[in-house]
Amino acid sequence: MRASIADIATHVGRQVTLHGWLHARRSSGKIHFLIVRDGTGFIQAVMSKAAVGDEAFLRADHLSQETSLSVTGAVRADARARGGYEIDVTSLEVHGDSHDYPITPKEHGVDYLLDRRHLWIRSERQTAILRVRHEVISAVRDFFNGRGFILCDTPIFTPAACEGTTTLFPVQYFEDTTAYLTQSGQLYNEANAMALGKVYCFGPTFRAEKSKTRRHLTEFWMVEPEMAYADLHDVIELAEGLLTSVVARVLETRRPELQILERDTSKLERVTAPFPRLTYDEAARRLAEKGQPFEYGTDLGGSDETVLSEQFDRPVCVTHYPAAVKAFYMKADPRQPDKALCVDVLAPEGYGEIIGGGQREDDLQRLEQRIRAHNLPPQAFEWYLDLRRYGSVPHGGFGMGIERCVSWICGLEHVRETIPYPRMLYRLYP
Amino acid sequence: MRASIADIATHVGRQVTLHGWLHARRSSGKIHFLIVRDGTGFIQAVMSKAAVGDEAFLRADHLSQETSLSVTGAVRADARARGGYEIDVTSLEVHGDSHDYPITPKEHGVDYLLDRRHLWIRSERQTAILRVRHEVISAVRDFFNGRGFILCDTPIFTPAACEGTTTLFPVQYFEDTTAYLTQSGQLYNEANAMALGKVYCFGPTFRAEKSKTRRHLTEFWMVEPEMAYADLHDVIELAEGLLTSVVARVLETRRPELQILERDTSKLERVTAPFPRLTYDEAARRLAEKGQPFEYGTDLGGSDETVLSEQFDRPVCVTHYPAAVKAFYMKADPRQPDKALCVDVLAPEGYGEIIGGGQREDDLQRLEQRIRAHNLPPQAFEWYLDLRRYGSVPHGGFGMGIERCVSWICGLEHVRETIPYPRMLYRLYP
Repeated sequence: MRASIADIATHVGRQVTLHGWLHARRSSGKIHFLIVRDGTGFIQAVMSKAAVGDEAFLRADHLSQETSLSVTGAVRADARARGGYEIDVTSLEVHGDSHDYPITPKEHGVDYLLDRRHLWIRSERQTAILRVRHEVISAVRDFFNGRGFILCDTPIFTPAACEGTTTLFPVQYFEDTTAYLTQSGQLYNEANAMALGKVYCFGPTFRAEKSKTRRHLTEFWMVEPEMAYADLHDVIELAEGLLTSVVARVLETRRPELQILERDTSKLERVTAPFPRLTYDEAARRLAEKGQPFEYGTDLGGSDETVLSEQFDRPVCVTHYPAAVKAFYMKADPRQPDKALCVDVLAPEGYGEIIGGGQREDDLQRLEQRIRAHNLPPQAFEWYLDLRRYGSVPHGGFGMGIERCVSWICGLEHVRETIPYPRMLYRLYP
Repeated sequence: MRASIADIATHVGRQVTLHGWLHARRSSGKIHFLIVRDGTGFIQAVMSKAAVGDEAFLRADHLSQETSLSVTGAVRADARARGGYEIDVTSLEVHGDSHDYPITPKEHGVDYLLDRRHLWIRSERQTAILRVRHEVISAVRDFFNGRGFILCDTPIFTPAACEGTTTLFPVQYFEDTTAYLTQSGQLYNEANAMALGKVYCFGPTFRAEKSKTRRHLTEFWMVEPEMAYADLHDVIELAEGLLTSVVARVLETRRPELQILERDTSKLERVTAPFPRLTYDEAARRLAEKGQPFEYGTDLGGSDETVLSEQFDRPVCVTHYPAAVKAFYMKADPRQPDKALCVDVLAPEGYGEIIGGGQREDDLQRLEQRIRAHNLPPQAFEWYLDLRRYGSVPHGGFGMGIERCVSWICGLEHVRETIPYPRMLYRLYP
């Protein structure tokens, strides 16, 4: 019967057929050790001359990396084997050749590998990362669906710039219109929360950033929840609940993948609520104590975030940034109007910001002032202002970048490995 | 305690507070009947002068549509009430005014409503559609996740046109490169299936179509599964499994929404496997019998699909179209090489194609021929050809448009209501 490597434990002692590819081969005079992968895992198939006969054994002599093949044989538990099981091959069928597969066990440079990303993703390490990504996304959706949030897709084509135009990708929209690719679904999310109470959007977002850092892609996926009748406290609690739930799910279901990635899972096991909470002022004091050159009143930079997050063993919530450095839609704290009711969540181990959000300005006049102060075109925001004209309520939410989250959970050095086909300043292929 | 209308049945006899908006008000001398919505549903709150006192009763006299408010009161079951429950109000708090809300119970034209889509989505009918959309998407993801498919996001920015350039949106990608917005993740899906076995992508796709029909948007969401070691038969079975599973889930969890939409659910209950299967040749004969003007050898048009799908009470699978009218990557049927191993699934009740897919050409030489025959730039497809160079296997999959699927399940006349912010030829706002 047809089986997959992920389910091989349920087939011990039985004859199965695996459809897959040859990952590696090692041969002695009388035995071929074939490492076969089928997309769900890797397993060793042991092919002895005695079992398959001289002719079949000889044919397997020239099988090269990534040849597609089916192996049939009995499943045997073996504690020493990779994954705990092996197959004793009784027959083997080849489907497609593979000559001079370009990604060999030797070291390749990252540009070489990115040029061959369509093949690189076949490696054990890359499939492990992509399965963790899959699990993170499933866990995120299950978290929101389980709490009564309604998925409400926000548009990719938007008519106006939400936070300045320098990092926007413009698109010619038929003859005489310019559309911009979305940088965030948040403004639409706010309208949707007024309709449906608790909503989230989850889609690709775009930033035409020329910076080449390990945290930036031009195209990345973001989940953004938004709640009507919610304040900053509710937003922080939701972010905390989301991160603990996602990490717990990956630890529960993706231990083998984390092991392949040599991730220190004890660090992930510490990600439990409550997370430490700091105000911006406290964060600034901590940076000064550490001798970090930081100018009070400015936004936290990547290295500031690293210094801060290294002081804690779990994600840390930094609140009450200066309103001046935050987006126009942030609500000012009534008790200290120069501070915003906002929160950034910094991942531990120096990974920096993975969540940013807060409470939104729900007062029409103050929001109009902010739009003018930011020199934004008021007519583009008329519909957004309507949300304050017709039954405004306290509301808030946040955005979480999926690639940064996966990068942290997997313990990677660069976000480019967390998405199947990363898009960067000089990278649009394949 | 805080409650939501969706869960109101669990609070009968208890005092609760609902946070929401006033949808409508009707008053007699001594009682206000307030229809309150909170995003999860609509409920009648009964406010009597005797219970709240003269002053509070008088204040409620001027509450207008979409005022945001909280009502506190005891939950009472009432079989005659909308949803089966009512609230006997003991106190009411107003949060935000709403003067001259532009969408009144009277009839408005669709352009008027689309210009105010950020408010229109608050209506009972639109929230019902958006909740069905949410459920369809959840059901699709659960279906694939439950069958061991790995979500593998394909890129939005692509370097080359996959199926002709006339309906592509080009984007200036930094200084000297042009990117195109994806029309399908399929080619990447094929690479991903060779890495992970069974995969799906699910994201927005773009077509710069100038046609204004009830089935077209410029931006729409598509789910595309792809399986390694699969043939046309497996693809059809997967499509059948997906549609029956999605329809069953919506019937199970979204009856109230379908009732609001006045959907004839008996028609959805007939959507069970197996679906009727027709070859293109059989379809052509049926069209001729019905006197439909159809030229044999061409693709089925929208009205052909309507005529065909009206002959069945469930989705119908049409297979083996002429290879010449299908995309270059379709595998030719070895027994009749002028036909493709493809399938379109037509939704019943005249809704037409919602799924298109099939088996992919897995032979390197034949695929190269097809690329030349379609005048496609070979170097743009080098990476795609690699999939046939290194361990090619039989594989296939399909794409399903979410908006068309939701439109059919909800029984709508136009796809524009199935997405929060539809994008069309002359529609980019809000």
